[in-house]
Amino acid sequence: MIDGGIKERIKSIVGEKNFTDNPFDLIAYSADGSEAEGMAEAISWVITSEQVSEIMKLANEKRFTVTPRGAATGLSGGAVAKQGLIMDFSRMNTILEIDQKNLTATVEAGVVLADLNKELEKQGTGLFFPPMPASDSVAQVGGSIAENAGGVRAVKYGVMRDWILGLEIVLPTGEIINEGGKTRKNVSGYDLIGLLTGSEGTLGIITKATVGLTPIPESRLSALAYFDTPENAGKFIFALFQSGLDISAGEILDRQTLNTVAGYTGMDFPDCGAMILLEMDGDMEDIKRRLAKLEELFKSSVGISDYRLAWDPVENLELWRARKAALPSMAQLKPNVVIEDTTVPLSKIPELLKRMEELAKQFNIRIPCYGHIGDGNIHPMFLFDPRDHDEAKRAHDAVKVMGDIVLKDLQGTVTGEHGVGTEKKMFMLAEHGQAKMNLWRRIKKAFDPNGILNPGKIFDYD
Amino acid sequence: MIDGGIKERIKSIVGEKNFTDNPFDLIAYSADGSEAEGMAEAISWVITSEQVSEIMKLANEKRFTVTPRGAATGLSGGAVAKQGLIMDFSRMNTILEIDQKNLTATVEAGVVLADLNKELEKQGTGLFFPPMPASDSVAQVGGSIAENAGGVRAVKYGVMRDWILGLEIVLPTGEIINEGGKTRKNVSGYDLIGLLTGSEGTLGIITKATVGLTPIPESRLSALAYFDTPENAGKFIFALFQSGLDISAGEILDRQTLNTVAGYTGMDFPDCGAMILLEMDGDMEDIKRRLAKLEELFKSSVGISDYRLAWDPVENLELWRARKAALPSMAQLKPNVVIEDTTVPLSKIPELLKRMEELAKQFNIRIPCYGHIGDGNIHPMFLFDPRDHDEAKRAHDAVKVMGDIVLKDLQGTVTGEHGVGTEKKMFMLAEHGQAKMNLWRRIKKAFDPNGILNPGKIFDYD
Repeated sequence: MIDGGIKERIKSIVGEKNFTDNPFDLIAYSADGSEAEGMAEAISWVITSEQVSEIMKLANEKRFTVTPRGAATGLSGGAVAKQGLIMDFSRMNTILEIDQKNLTATVEAGVVLADLNKELEKQGTGLFFPPMPASDSVAQVGGSIAENAGGVRAVKYGVMRDWILGLEIVLPTGEIINEGGKTRKNVSGYDLIGLLTGSEGTLGIITKATVGLTPIPESRLSALAYFDTPENAGKFIFALFQSGLDISAGEILDRQTLNTVAGYTGMDFPDCGAMILLEMDGDMEDIKRRLAKLEELFKSSVGISDYRLAWDPVENLELWRARKAALPSMAQLKPNVVIEDTTVPLSKIPELLKRMEELAKQFNIRIPCYGHIGDGNIHPMFLFDPRDHDEAKRAHDAVKVMGDIVLKDLQGTVTGEHGVGTEKKMFMLAEHGQAKMNLWRRIKKAFDPNGILNPGKIFDYD
Repeated sequence: MIDGGIKERIKSIVGEKNFTDNPFDLIAYSADGSEAEGMAEAISWVITSEQVSEIMKLANEKRFTVTPRGAATGLSGGAVAKQGLIMDFSRMNTILEIDQKNLTATVEAGVVLADLNKELEKQGTGLFFPPMPASDSVAQVGGSIAENAGGVRAVKYGVMRDWILGLEIVLPTGEIINEGGKTRKNVSGYDLIGLLTGSEGTLGIITKATVGLTPIPESRLSALAYFDTPENAGKFIFALFQSGLDISAGEILDRQTLNTVAGYTGMDFPDCGAMILLEMDGDMEDIKRRLAKLEELFKSSVGISDYRLAWDPVENLELWRARKAALPSMAQLKPNVVIEDTTVPLSKIPELLKRMEELAKQFNIRIPCYGHIGDGNIHPMFLFDPRDHDEAKRAHDAVKVMGDIVLKDLQGTVTGEHGVGTEKKMFMLAEHGQAKMNLWRRIKKAFDPNGILNPGKIFDYD
């Protein structure tokens, strides 16, 4: 419970204008990008790491819970609090340094991903920060690290973890520690960057990060192909990765998704089982050379009914139209969607698509699927109308069965991108087993002895 | 203390032929690639994860310590035990599965890195496992993961951590847990692969690993350039990484190293401050195109007195001769060497080389330096003759000062590749501070409540 006395103490730390317990504000902060909901008791904006530290010390003293929050674009409930204080980072958003010589940037946790890239462009560095979750125009660095965000370019550039060189972390107990820095390699002591990245704000609060940068590729070109069946798309995926052709994005859209996009945009697709869209980046001469190789691969693949190659940046944009319309088009069919992010071994992608089609029939709902072939990370979209209670229940029951299928039959994980939060806790025991979850509890306790930091996420501590 | 009763229990777990307490064996196991020394009380070879588990349960019951050991090529003392049991993995060395469709291999901990690549070649997969520490012809998978080994190709392919998709881990308490699998992305729960990789066998025992594979590049070509000063070499490094030219190895050899190599091989080098050697891989057409671009970069760089380009694989090997002779050539000068692996921000490489030259003068010893420019990971080689006690002391005193320089003046770490073990413990407080080391202790305790697994490495637990 955050009583009046605690509220005054928090105000004395962050200042009057960085605190609210107005119910309208609390309602505005009661959700994220998932279905999770919860009302906190108060919200404070933080500006400095020292404020974060002082609040954590107070939270330990008074035993209230703290939930760090970036832009709350998360899809698993990580930034939603059912009690205690929400700590908002949007006002702690300074780009502290762009160090062109070391290809690094040091930023505060509240810096928006796209803003960093805009600043890099503005300064004419020729560099960019590659991780690009779909929400990058609003998602903040701290939250993206906490969730180990991915995105369409992960197949070439990796996820957040691959770009974090240094972190400033405020421990739940209030100590401020620094891990790593500007060095590209570091094996000194336990890898706390690895452990904190993706820990969903349960082990420590990320206040600053030093990230790696890389030169902006001269250009990007894409290609797409329509396959008669998901199985033949799967065979092509195998041939593609065996070929060593370096793709910077690789997306698959299943038949259901194409139908949905067609209905929404008026685009016309050939009758097919799946579409694969590939992007390559580099200098123009090199991409064109590789695009020609890709065409050879298309020609020698089985089950391709049609393909298109974009030889210039304008055509390139056109090829991405269907993929960009995929998520918005779903909204036209049904007002709500549970966006899953199951990840399976590459060879299991066709089976996953097939099983989701069967699941849709079994529960009489729609489950269009699209996602990233380079990582086996597919987004089954469980569509439903919340006013239709039976349909809503069928959709949620189907999600549970999907978990079983992915874990038992496909050697996959229930989350490759979005994290566990509150929304995927139900799968943790089946995915990880009791011994590992007991270890998680001991790790959590090593960081947060009083269990006050972002409680109830990933797993239950007690 | 491992008494007679415990020895019988261990024999009953692993079998008579997988146990020894013969003093000659214990002496043979008393060192690794560093200066660390210590005599264990017994050695057992393990064949199965269940044996590892049973031994750990026994160790907890009887409170003896266990030190896992691969090929003991480590350079920081990680596999050396001062007491208790050494657990040797060299007989647990089965390649369990090569899954070409998913570009993965699953191996037991004792598989030698080079043996995996030989098997991949033998089966005609066209794939390879890229991490290649210098010791890869003997180093084992388990030990290489425990140390998060790097190598010359890390600039393009990353380190062990970047290739580990799944682990089977025996916890110090004896439970067997599985983390990850064949999926390329996974954000389900705490990243135990990240935490265990590089934890130097202090948190858990790696018994099996599923690793990623990638297509073997068609060819490799190299280029080298001689720079008048390390500063100009540093300017070139900046231009190189800004250019986006994708190199698969980038090495620097300082003047001292070149002199040493010249004396050893009879090779003739131009008078210079440093040599940089670069490798690129890909298909031949592409590499040649990039090699031509690299030549342009050489031509436009300041301070290059001479350069060479290898346009075919034979010339390529010739260019690597000096680099390959670097370590052996040192042995001709002095019988002993402390091999350091300081890592600094890219822009600090020239200053590091300059400071090491000054340090050599200050302590009247030789400190040739070479290393990996892509990671800022340089190997200062502190040469000495152990029979010359004063020189040996000067060398070790100089190592301590090097730690100060790297941490205080160069924003670096004392270890980018080799780990802390026993040999770099003295720097940990200065590098990490008390709050973080207290956290390490709590993490260690979460995994290993009785402190029986590889004690005394990285830091002291009590």
